[in-house]
Amino acid sequence: MSFKPLDPNYEMKVKESFARQQFMSFIGAKLVEVKPGYCEIHLPYKKELSQQHGFFHAGVIGTIADNSGGYAAYSLMATDSSVFTVEYKLNLIAPGEGDLLIGRGQVIRPGRNLTVCRTEVFVIKNGVEKLCATSLMTLMEMAGKVDCPVENK
Amino acid sequence: MSFKPLDPNYEMKVKESFARQQFMSFIGAKLVEVKPGYCEIHLPYKKELSQQHGFFHAGVIGTIADNSGGYAAYSLMATDSSVFTVEYKLNLIAPGEGDLLIGRGQVIRPGRNLTVCRTEVFVIKNGVEKLCATSLMTLMEMAGKVDCPVENK
Amino acid sequence: MSFKPLDPNYEMKVKESFARQQFMSFIGAKLVEVKPGYCEIHLPYKKELSQQHGFFHAGVIGTIADNSGGYAAYSLMATDSSVFTVEYKLNLIAPGEGDLLIGRGQVIRPGRNLTVCRTEVFVIKNGVEKLCATSLMTLMEMAGKVDCPVENK
Amino acid sequence: MSFKPLDPNYEMKVKESFARQQFMSFIGAKLVEVKPGYCEIHLPYKKELSQQHGFFHAGVIGTIADNSGGYAAYSLMATDSSVFTVEYKLNLIAPGEGDLLIGRGQVIRPGRNLTVCRTEVFVIKNGVEKLCATSLMTLMEMAGKVDCPVENK
Repeated sequence: MSFKPLDPNYEMKVKESFARQQFMSFIGAKLVEVKPGYCEIHLPYKKELSQQHGFFHAGVIGTIADNSGGYAAYSLMATDSSVFTVEYKLNLIAPGEGDLLIGRGQVIRPGRNLTVCRTEVFVIKNGVEKLCATSLMTLMEMAGKVDCPVENK
Repeated sequence: MSFKPLDPNYEMKVKESFARQQFMSFIGAKLVEVKPGYCEIHLPYKKELSQQHGFFHAGVIGTIADNSGGYAAYSLMATDSSVFTVEYKLNLIAPGEGDLLIGRGQVIRPGRNLTVCRTEVFVIKNGVEKLCATSLMTLMEMAGKVDCPVENK
Repeated sequence: MSFKPLDPNYEMKVKESFARQQFMSFIGAKLVEVKPGYCEIHLPYKKELSQQHGFFHAGVIGTIADNSGGYAAYSLMATDSSVFTVEYKLNLIAPGEGDLLIGRGQVIRPGRNLTVCRTEVFVIKNGVEKLCATSLMTLMEMAGKVDCPVENK
Repeated sequence: MSFKPLDPNYEMKVKESFARQQFMSFIGAKLVEVKPGYCEIHLPYKKELSQQHGFFHAGVIGTIADNSGGYAAYSLMATDSSVFTVEYKLNLIAPGEGDLLIGRGQVIRPGRNLTVCRTEVFVIKNGVEKLCATSLMTLMEMAGKVDCPVENK
């Protein structure tokens, strides 16, 4: 699928929004690639991200899924819009056992109001990439809503 | 709905599992209440948990939803079982703007293999509780699988 | 939850829309109750609705879930709007074995654009009502779009 | 993705199960192709399948999605197993306006207990194929449960 972003500076726009998400730096996530309708996020393992078996927590996996899909959608939206996750459904396919999570979000259907994305999250262990989770998401474009705290305007 | 837990020490079992999830202490989440088929988790706001508008990140909201539902399900499971999230679907109803998130997970239908839960996440702002997200989840009981890292056995 | 419908004739509006859905009469579904933000649909068993074990087909259960939620949402919408199902997630809790399906849709959060509903589908066997499925849905209000085929305008 | 079915007669097995679903012949659905982990179902339009605008009803679209995914999963299961839909989530991407629905179900991850499938439903109008809906599903293998009414045993 090939999409034309409304904002020619879509890559910068996504990177700046990602940088404003303090939760991303808190967990250590990195925005690795942005293309029109596509976004890839990496998250190295640290024990603070683990569940009871020592693997990546499902909430962390969900976070990476949500954010790769969200920024895939945002890459296609107008310059002065914000993106809002309406809902997502996540299937956890394999335990998050490994050194690195890779989230890949892909727009399936962009829309003026609603965008549908599919996300895959892979876990890398000893250099082998394994599908860990997949999600199907609905996102909304909020036209005219700045993508930063209102008190910063 | 009223359920009878298979493990009479279900409350201790859930608390110990929660304490093993390093991601919970990392974000600052507290297990506040466990009843048979029910679990409540609180998470005070800190800026490290925020998205680009300064509100609770959707991944954080999803984490609280997933964990309240997961432990609601786990409370009914056998002593020597682990719980695994098969999948969940989360609707984000209102922005996570406030001082505290409260996740309330409730088993709808327990099962030998699969358990279905409903979760509501509320955000508290100036003392007012508002529905922020709701989820519908499927969890699996993994009989005979210890709820801790294998190397700790 | 108590909601105020935008259209005082919401009940008539929902009934007329339901009557326009030929699929409803084809399967034999009846609109039994409409309240603001609530809708109940009944569907008696006939063997044409069955899957391989002779029970209500999952597609039929999903149809009743979708329609009760959809009309619950539609009951609150403006007079000249149409309703569109954005997405839904359905958990099948028990086999659809019985004489009657009852779908009950309830709005959780109405919105100018998007409405979130929860639906429960019960199956009645020998007079006993059993939870058969539950869903979580997102619906969109399409303002100014007539709720009938365009060629009828 | 390439899968090896447990039952060498998987194609016949799926076709026989499909033929037992009276709901399929009632709506006019045809099983067009079965491969290991894949299933394609076609459904020509008739007005009895329509919603209020005269398009394919969302419940019909959901039925085709559910069944293509269900039989994609079933194609990989053991000879004496039944398949049960645990849950699915469906995004309706475009109105079901056209002459034919095509459902394509694909296994993403097969499992001893649970199988995850992705389904796409296309609508054909004037020879043009358009993505109408996509779903993400979880299915369960019920070992030793015959795929027909018990009274027929």
